[in-house]
Amino acid sequence: MRTAIQGDAHILSLEIGEELIESILSYADREKISAASISAIGAIRSFELGYYVLDRKEYLRKKVDGIAELISCDGNLALKEDKPFVHLHVAAGLSDFSVIGGHLFSGIVAVSAEVVLRPMPNPMNRSFSNATGLYLLDLLPWKAF
Amino acid sequence: MRTAIQGDAHILSLEIGEELIESILSYADREKISAASISAIGAIRSFELGYYVLDRKEYLRKKVDGIAELISCDGNLALKEDKPFVHLHVAAGLSDFSVIGGHLFSGIVAVSAEVVLRPMPNPMNRSFSNATGLYLLDLLPWKAF
Amino acid sequence: MRTAIQGDAHILSLEIGEELIESILSYADREKISAASISAIGAIRSFELGYYVLDRKEYLRKKVDGIAELISCDGNLALKEDKPFVHLHVAAGLSDFSVIGGHLFSGIVAVSAEVVLRPMPNPMNRSFSNATGLYLLDLLPWKAF
Repeated sequence: MRTAIQGDAHILSLEIGEELIESILSYADREKISAASISAIGAIRSFELGYYVLDRKEYLRKKVDGIAELISCDGNLALKEDKPFVHLHVAAGLSDFSVIGGHLFSGIVAVSAEVVLRPMPNPMNRSFSNATGLYLLDLLPWKAF
Repeated sequence: MRTAIQGDAHILSLEIGEELIESILSYADREKISAASISAIGAIRSFELGYYVLDRKEYLRKKVDGIAELISCDGNLALKEDKPFVHLHVAAGLSDFSVIGGHLFSGIVAVSAEVVLRPMPNPMNRSFSNATGLYLLDLLPWKAF
Repeated sequence: MRTAIQGDAHILSLEIGEELIESILSYADREKISAASISAIGAIRSFELGYYVLDRKEYLRKKVDGIAELISCDGNLALKEDKPFVHLHVAAGLSDFSVIGGHLFSGIVAVSAEVVLRPMPNPMNRSFSNATGLYLLDLLPWKAF
């Protein structure tokens, strides 16, 4: 991983073989970043996508072995049970230029990944939501009074 | 809706059943935000996509009932005829991991939607463009003199 | 092209017929921006996508003539052999709402393109990587010591 701090953005240039989510977590841990928005492009392989089935409160999962262009990769870093957790959704471009996508469980950088991390000043927590079966961002209720 | 202000970013955690665009508009209205960039991930249902046919100056429309992963959702908030208007394009991931997308007319949050709003200091207006039949961002002409 | 500076964001509203990448490069050149993150939505036509074949160290290319919604367009501006270089990945929405995508070689604005450029204070260089056959962001090695 190669990195640069650019104003309020941290740029991570991930290298072949690095796991995308673990790399971001390692960086955030060492740099004491507990909340951030994340955006990336690049290429990944051996990745696993998820589609959440709300009725069953579980993910359908799809493993992809080959290399895909990382067309979009958006999400955030927050705390889940006091540990940093990266939530990313990705669009992955295949060799026929079709696109698949969903929630990203994991993915290995295939060529490069260029990540923009924008740290936030305060921690954000995720807490378990019974209604959805997922850990959602636990912010303050907003009143449209 | 749950919210947090994080430096120059406003984080909106939308809840099941909330309409995505209306929620952003409500928040922006109450918080006196008239211009912003927007990025989100999450899951939506009962959404309507558009593809603009320039020749006919109208949108093809597609309604989708089921739940889709909100893979990417990018755009902005600006003023259209003096009223706040949200312009978003989305990539939506289906249960077979295929992706559909286009302009977003509306969509209901299906599980959660995590929105990053970055307000801009000055209002931006959209004005009607005869050439396209759409309201485009009416900024100052830039001269590559 | 119409433009506005909004805090740390430069908003570019590109017009029909302008080439997306060239327009960003022209703007960056005149405004002395050598590094930036980029995000855009809009519509493009006559665009060329790439999928990188790592084994052969070359891109598969696909030209598309028709108009597509620019659903997502993410990337950055950096220096490649001392010249500004724009690296973008796009998801393009077709009239049947299917999505294709990949690396963007070029594309003509079909209706409008709304670009958010966030300049970075320091230049970033790309240097050639033998392992991948591509010019990758040449940042400082990060040590997870």
